[in-house]
Amino acid sequence: MSKSGSPLRIVVIGGVAAGMSAASKARRLRPDIEIFVFERSGHVSYSSCGIPYFVSDIVKSPENLVAYDAKFFKEKRNINVFLYHEVISLHPEKQSILVRDLKTGLENEYRYDKLVIATGARANIPQIKGIELKGIFTIRILQDGIKTKDFIRENSPGRALIVGAGYIGMEMAETLVKLGLDVTMAARGPDILGTMEKEIDEIVEDELGRNGITLLKFTQVREFTGENGYVRKAIFNNGRSVDIDMVIVATGVRPNSGIAKEAGIEIGYKDAIRVNQRMETSIPGIYSAGDCAETYHQILERSVYLPLGTTANKQGRVAGENMAGGHALFRGVVGTSTFKVFDLEVARTGLSSREAKIEGFDYISNVIEQYSRANYYPGGSKIRVKLIAEKNTGRVLGAEMAGRDGVPKRIDVIATAITAKMTAKDIGDLDLTYSPPFAPVWDPVLTAANDLKKRITIKEEHPNL
Amino acid sequence: MSKSGSPLRIVVIGGVAAGMSAASKARRLRPDIEIFVFERSGHVSYSSCGIPYFVSDIVKSPENLVAYDAKFFKEKRNINVFLYHEVISLHPEKQSILVRDLKTGLENEYRYDKLVIATGARANIPQIKGIELKGIFTIRILQDGIKTKDFIRENSPGRALIVGAGYIGMEMAETLVKLGLDVTMAARGPDILGTMEKEIDEIVEDELGRNGITLLKFTQVREFTGENGYVRKAIFNNGRSVDIDMVIVATGVRPNSGIAKEAGIEIGYKDAIRVNQRMETSIPGIYSAGDCAETYHQILERSVYLPLGTTANKQGRVAGENMAGGHALFRGVVGTSTFKVFDLEVARTGLSSREAKIEGFDYISNVIEQYSRANYYPGGSKIRVKLIAEKNTGRVLGAEMAGRDGVPKRIDVIATAITAKMTAKDIGDLDLTYSPPFAPVWDPVLTAANDLKKRITIKEEHPNL
Repeated sequence: MSKSGSPLRIVVIGGVAAGMSAASKARRLRPDIEIFVFERSGHVSYSSCGIPYFVSDIVKSPENLVAYDAKFFKEKRNINVFLYHEVISLHPEKQSILVRDLKTGLENEYRYDKLVIATGARANIPQIKGIELKGIFTIRILQDGIKTKDFIRENSPGRALIVGAGYIGMEMAETLVKLGLDVTMAARGPDILGTMEKEIDEIVEDELGRNGITLLKFTQVREFTGENGYVRKAIFNNGRSVDIDMVIVATGVRPNSGIAKEAGIEIGYKDAIRVNQRMETSIPGIYSAGDCAETYHQILERSVYLPLGTTANKQGRVAGENMAGGHALFRGVVGTSTFKVFDLEVARTGLSSREAKIEGFDYISNVIEQYSRANYYPGGSKIRVKLIAEKNTGRVLGAEMAGRDGVPKRIDVIATAITAKMTAKDIGDLDLTYSPPFAPVWDPVLTAANDLKKRITIKEEHPNL
Repeated sequence: MSKSGSPLRIVVIGGVAAGMSAASKARRLRPDIEIFVFERSGHVSYSSCGIPYFVSDIVKSPENLVAYDAKFFKEKRNINVFLYHEVISLHPEKQSILVRDLKTGLENEYRYDKLVIATGARANIPQIKGIELKGIFTIRILQDGIKTKDFIRENSPGRALIVGAGYIGMEMAETLVKLGLDVTMAARGPDILGTMEKEIDEIVEDELGRNGITLLKFTQVREFTGENGYVRKAIFNNGRSVDIDMVIVATGVRPNSGIAKEAGIEIGYKDAIRVNQRMETSIPGIYSAGDCAETYHQILERSVYLPLGTTANKQGRVAGENMAGGHALFRGVVGTSTFKVFDLEVARTGLSSREAKIEGFDYISNVIEQYSRANYYPGGSKIRVKLIAEKNTGRVLGAEMAGRDGVPKRIDVIATAITAKMTAKDIGDLDLTYSPPFAPVWDPVLTAANDLKKRITIKEEHPNL
C-alpha cells in the first residue's frame, strides 16, 4: 500500500517498447498494485522497427506490428492503458502528473508512487524551407508508417528523395525501390551510416547502386518547393535539384525529454534523460527507459545515447522490476546493431575505428573476406569483416560485417566476446559450429580474429624463433 | 639444423585436416626446415565433412573438396607430400619411421627431428555376417565417397539402409532421399543422435518422417544377405528384415592410434593418442593432432575424444607451431557441433543434460520455442532451444537447438558464452543484433536464458518482495 492508503500505483508514460515492458514486468512481480499507462498515440506495444516493412507491404496491416493491444493489457495483465492521453507535466513534489485526453481536451491529475518516463524519441526534422509540404514524411511512430503508406497508395509517387543515409534511410530505400519508385538518397557528408567503417560503407554503396539508387554525398537540402501544397522539387546546397513526388526524412532522432527537463530531472548525454543502471533518474521514484533515456555502454564504462528497440525492451524490464521493489541492473550495451538493405546484411558491435580513436584507444584493425559456407556448398557468399582491437592487450573493441548470408548472428558472437572482454586470440580459439552448409572450417569470425592476432602477439608467442 | 647436420626435418603422418594444417603452420614460421608428409591415400587436404554433398552431387567432382593438392604444397609451400605412402612403424629411439610405398611395395626409413601423428580415425565397422557384400559403404575418406557415388551411378539402387543415426547417418539419409532412394534408418537404442536431448531428437525424427524415411529404433543388423555378391537384405536382431540394394554404415569412428601404441606412445581416452594442450604425446618430439588424438574439453577440464574437422585444423596448427619452436596451446573445445538434415538445422554446444548428470553436475534445464525473425517478417520459423545450467551458480553448461533458420550461429553465441563461463543471467543481458528480418526483439538465445535465469535467481534478486 502507498502512503495514501490506496494500492501502490505505478504510472508509465509512453506505451511502446520500454513502457509496456516496464508495465508487464512490474505486473508479473506484483499482482497487487495498480498500473496506469498513458500513451499519446492510438497504439501501444508495436514494433517501430517493423514500420518500413509495413510501408513496403511485406506486413499488410498495422495491427500485425502490434504485439498486444490495450484490451489485452487490461484483460490479461490488469494494466490500464489510456490511449490518446498525453502527459503534459510532471509534479514530483506532489507525486503526480497532469494528463490531457487528446479526444476531449480535458485535463486530469493522476498521482503515482513510482513513475517511469518512456516517452521515446522523435524524428530529427531539419529546418528546411518547404518542409511542411505534403508528401514529406518521417518514419518514427506507427502513425507515420500509416500516413506514408496511405500517401503512396493514393498518389502513386514515381520519384522519392531520402534525406539521410542511416539505417532507416537504407530500409526505406529498399522499401520504395520495391514499390517501384525511383529513389535518390542524400547524405550530408562523405560517408553513409554514421560512424561505420569505410570498408563496410563501400559494400553498402555498391548495393545501393546495384539497385538503381542515386546516392548523393556532401548533399543537404536547402529548400523543398511544391505545387498545390505537394512537394515537387528538392533544391540542394550545391545548387543542384531533383524532381520528386515524396520525401523521407531520416536524419536521426532526438529524445523526448522535454517534460522531464521541465520537472527538474537531470538531463544527460545528447539531451537524453540521465539514468543510472537501475534506470533511476535524478529524482527518487522516477525512472526512465527506452529511446528518451541514456544507455550504459560496457566498453566506454559510461552512458551514451544509443536508442534501439532491443535496448528499450531490456531497460523497460529493469525499470519495471525496480519499481516493483526489485534490484535489477541494466548491464548495458556494447554497441550492437544491424540492418538489411536489399540482399545485403550489415551489422556492427563495439566501437568503430573512428570511435576508438575519439575515445583515446590505441587500436589496430584488419579487414578480411571469407565465405559464409564451405566454398563448394551452394548459397554461400563472401563476408567482409573488419575487426578492431586494443593494440597493447589484444582486447577486441569492435567489429563490422557486410555480406549476404549469416552476418548478424556472427556479429553476435563478437558482441558476446566483447562482453566477456576477450582478446583476438581468445576469439580465434573459439569452438564454433562447422558444417559445410553453415560455415567454412575456419569461420569468418575465426579467420578475422586469427589474422588480427598475428599483428598483435607474434613476437610474444615465439620467443625461440 | 638438426643433430645430424642436415636441416631440421618435420615429418607429418597423414595429409588431411590436422596434418596439412600442421605442415602449413610450421612452414609459415620456419622457411628453412624440411617438411615431409606421408599420406596413405591419393588425396591430401580435402574436406571429409563435404563427402555426403559429393555423393549427393551438390559437389560435382572430388577435386572440388580438395582445398590444395600435393603439387600446390610442393610448389607454393615447399612441403613434400608423398601420396600412397603408408607409415607402418615408428622408431622413436632412432627418430625414424618406416614407410611403405603402396604403389611399388618398397619400404624406406625416414629420419625426423619432430614428428606429428595425424592418422585420423576410421569408420567403426560392426562385426556383422555379410558385411563384406558389395553395396555396403562407410563414409569416411574421400575414396569412400567416390566408391559410393560410383556404385549409385552404376547400379541405380532403389532402397537403402543406413545403420546408425548420428550426424553422418543424417547427412547420408538426406543425400540418398534426394537421389531418389527409399531410405530406412536403423538406430541401436531408443534415441538418435547419441547423447543429444530428447526434445531435439523428436524434431529430427519428425523431419525424417516428413521426408519419407523409416526410422527403426532398438534395431541392430544381425546379418546381411545377398545375391551374386551384392547386398539384398538386412536381417535385424528382432527377426524382422528389410530388402535393400545398398547400405551406409555410419556407427561412429575410432582413432587410428595403432602405430602410435606399437611405438610405446601412451594411449588415452577411447583409444585416442594421449596429448597435452601443446599436442605433445608421451614421447618428446612426437606430436599428435586431429581425429586420432584426444581433445581437451574446457568445461570438463580434461581430455575427451571428440573428433571434428574444425578441431583437427586447430590442433594441427598448434602442433605445427610447436614443432617449429613456438609455444602454442590448444585451448580446447566446449563441445560444439552442427548438422543439417533436409531443411532442419541442428546444433549443440557444451554438455547435454545426460552428460551433465554423468559428470556429476547439479543442473537445471529448460526448453523454449521462439521465432527466428520478427513474427510478422516472412521466412522465419520457430527455433527450439534447450538450455542447461549449473543449479547453484547459473553457469551455462550446454545448449541444443533445432529449427529452420539461423540455428548454428546462435549456438555459436552460447559456445562463446560458455567459453567465458557466463551464467544464464549474463547471456540474457547480452546486447545481440535485432532487426525484423534477422531476429525478434528478444532473440531465442535471450528468451531461453531469461527463462532459465528465473528458475535460478528469482529469490535472490527480489529480497524485498
